[in-house]
Amino acid sequence: MKNIINTSITITFGTKIRELRKSRGLSQESLADLAELDRSYIGGVERGDRNISLINIQKLSIALNVNIAEFFKELND
Amino acid sequence: MKNIINTSITITFGTKIRELRKSRGLSQESLADLAELDRSYIGGVERGDRNISLINIQKLSIALNVNIAEFFKELND
Repeated sequence: MKNIINTSITITFGTKIRELRKSRGLSQESLADLAELDRSYIGGVERGDRNISLINIQKLSIALNVNIAEFFKELND
Repeated sequence: MKNIINTSITITFGTKIRELRKSRGLSQESLADLAELDRSYIGGVERGDRNISLINIQKLSIALNVNIAEFFKELND
């Protein structure tokens, strides 16, 4: 069982990705295709189970057509 | 030799970290201590050689006392 990272930042990020995906009427499958990532990986990111890397964060920002900063705006670390 | 990721996003991010670190008069060593990361890892991030993870991005934002969004503001993906 892959060591599941489940900290608030990954959960907050995942929730934001799900919100943006749904607001664009995209399924996890279509977001995965657009971002050239695996569908199950998208599911893990949205659940907060993945400690996503910068390059994959960029892939999601391009697929969702938002600046990466948008993913973190409401965050007050 | 670790597979060095050297794409524009990691270089852009690393340059921003170096800029913020220097503006706070911090050495790589002191930033590493503050962020609870390894000094050589900080060097790799600043050179753009590391595909940094979200949790480590957050550690740097806390250590540099900036919101994560700040790291990506000037980015136009």
